[in-house]
Amino acid sequence: MDIQTLNTPAALIDVRRMRRNIDRMQAHLDALGVRFRPHVKTTKCRHVVDAQIAAGAQGITVSTLKEAEQFFAGGIRDIVYAVGMVPAKLGQALALRRQGCDLKIVADNLQAAHAIAAFGREHGERFEVWIEIDVDGHRSGVPPESGLLIAIGRALVDGGMVLGGVLAHAGSSYEYDTREALAAIAGQERSRTVRAAERLRAAALPCPTVSIGSTPTALSANNLDGITEVRAGVYVMFDLVMHNIGVCELSDIALSVLTTVIGHQEEKGWAIVDAGWMAMSRDRGTQRQARDFGYGQVCTEDGEVLGGYVVSAANQEHGIVSRAGSPDPGIAQRFPVGTRLRILPNHACATGAQHPEYQAIGENGDAHAWPRFYGW
Amino acid sequence: MDIQTLNTPAALIDVRRMRRNIDRMQAHLDALGVRFRPHVKTTKCRHVVDAQIAAGAQGITVSTLKEAEQFFAGGIRDIVYAVGMVPAKLGQALALRRQGCDLKIVADNLQAAHAIAAFGREHGERFEVWIEIDVDGHRSGVPPESGLLIAIGRALVDGGMVLGGVLAHAGSSYEYDTREALAAIAGQERSRTVRAAERLRAAALPCPTVSIGSTPTALSANNLDGITEVRAGVYVMFDLVMHNIGVCELSDIALSVLTTVIGHQEEKGWAIVDAGWMAMSRDRGTQRQARDFGYGQVCTEDGEVLGGYVVSAANQEHGIVSRAGSPDPGIAQRFPVGTRLRILPNHACATGAQHPEYQAIGENGDAHAWPRFYGW
Repeated sequence: MDIQTLNTPAALIDVRRMRRNIDRMQAHLDALGVRFRPHVKTTKCRHVVDAQIAAGAQGITVSTLKEAEQFFAGGIRDIVYAVGMVPAKLGQALALRRQGCDLKIVADNLQAAHAIAAFGREHGERFEVWIEIDVDGHRSGVPPESGLLIAIGRALVDGGMVLGGVLAHAGSSYEYDTREALAAIAGQERSRTVRAAERLRAAALPCPTVSIGSTPTALSANNLDGITEVRAGVYVMFDLVMHNIGVCELSDIALSVLTTVIGHQEEKGWAIVDAGWMAMSRDRGTQRQARDFGYGQVCTEDGEVLGGYVVSAANQEHGIVSRAGSPDPGIAQRFPVGTRLRILPNHACATGAQHPEYQAIGENGDAHAWPRFYGW
Repeated sequence: MDIQTLNTPAALIDVRRMRRNIDRMQAHLDALGVRFRPHVKTTKCRHVVDAQIAAGAQGITVSTLKEAEQFFAGGIRDIVYAVGMVPAKLGQALALRRQGCDLKIVADNLQAAHAIAAFGREHGERFEVWIEIDVDGHRSGVPPESGLLIAIGRALVDGGMVLGGVLAHAGSSYEYDTREALAAIAGQERSRTVRAAERLRAAALPCPTVSIGSTPTALSANNLDGITEVRAGVYVMFDLVMHNIGVCELSDIALSVLTTVIGHQEEKGWAIVDAGWMAMSRDRGTQRQARDFGYGQVCTEDGEVLGGYVVSAANQEHGIVSRAGSPDPGIAQRFPVGTRLRILPNHACATGAQHPEYQAIGENGDAHAWPRFYGW
């Protein structure tokens, strides 16, 4: 297959850009002297993760136990499940560990810590647990200065579990778009997580791993003292949200959706395409950023950006391509029925999830199906 | 399996509500004397479509040729692909017809009509084509009064194809929320589509099928003179957008996402759950309606609505449950770690699409996996 013969809509990966993105992150973190553990939730695709590991990544991060199962079946042992563990999922985690998976789990509260320890003792399993740290008020985690941090650590150790370290994610980094602000939030993510590790150690608790990460902070960090590993996911594809944040160029975005023009409303300046929200996802991450790209930035089939043309609205299998600002009265001539376009997405994790497979596009336009999975 | 043993997140169908929704639509359209052709894009699930057909539906509507292939393989012959045909997909449509599928395709422009006719003649296939009518400026279609309507009809007939009828979808009905406004847009959808059919017939062109539909207009119509069939999709599940429009009660919503509380941020009044946007979808359809339900309305595991509690924010595998208006300082006691909740979604089509299967929940809480498919 090649790009000209693909059915539309299709999720394309520009393999050259993907490899460049992988190399950039790996080189940056190598230079800072930390291990890199990519978050595979972005692609859930073995071909992509193989390329990340070949470039130097050590272990993976997952957002579901299904990801852990699938990638462990594919030969990856070192896995952290970075979502708070609940009692009902401990059986699934135990099964993975019993098969030889070096699965690390996460807790940020005493109920979970006690439940993990009780279940572990009952089944003769010393779970390795990392404590989630809240570094920016974004979502989960315990504050680095809290008494709860020490209480959770002690509950795990006294309960016979392995306290493996601390883990943080500065999710609020997505809200910034200047180099200074990103460097500041990256510094905060580092210092607060290191502080949590120091407090655990001061309380005579172990904390070998100090894990942080998000794509914006990982790429903005210039000092990772005290950190042992960084996690990031979306950097491998990048997207319009990351472009607005300022950590990539449009020409770095490796994921796009190939689509076909199916009709027009000429007087409105609309071309209708067969990439609706089912193909793009409903993610409108750029809506609250400085530059709103609608459901995506329109490019030619070859990937050349068509400045000003965006997918301005979407139904399930219909997208409306229009020129932002002033309607294009010549849109039907510009993009006749059958014209093929590429759309750069708001959010690579969300757009990828809509597709059973990627089409990996090589330098000469050849296309190879790279399957991805979904579900829990 | 039963609901207590399901892994989370999971997409639940309340089978009793689903059957009630199916019976309501079928009885309404039976009383108005028209055929009903459900849109299967909402569920892409054979079990659901079987129930729709058993209740009296005649044929199906699809949004992708993959849906046509899957449901034809399952024994359904009468299928309309309700997205504008493009030349590159004619081979796939031809293959379906050659296998015995009574596939109808749609066009709203001369380029497509000529391409269909040329391809059909080349392959000795008389494609049945319906012309899409624009009844509300919402998306695709030709205006009923346009010369283009007659030109497309003539191009198809002169080109040797079967002109099967006209098809319209009043997508703008989603923007109304009063009985009067919905009755008015339903009347407009009917009258403009019937007008298009009359104009074709007056030009000595055939127009046996006159097909309209959307869930809000289908349920609001009280006169379907001149219409031969109605299409609707989301009515089978309903959702919060339909509730805000006013065509269902919260207690009619048959789709929900089962989730587990994984942690808290007590001082913020947050419970963190394992249903993020991957499980709920990124659809925020209620954001621009009179009542914004965030990423979903929270219910107990048994389905009882917990008034005021919504999923106020979502990351990929994390949702934040909070009380709209004033934070609940007792949220950690109200929903301890491990608590299971159900979330009613904004948009059943988008939420369903995130899941490889539904769990069909019977009257006594038994759960049966009903697979669904995705992709193109």
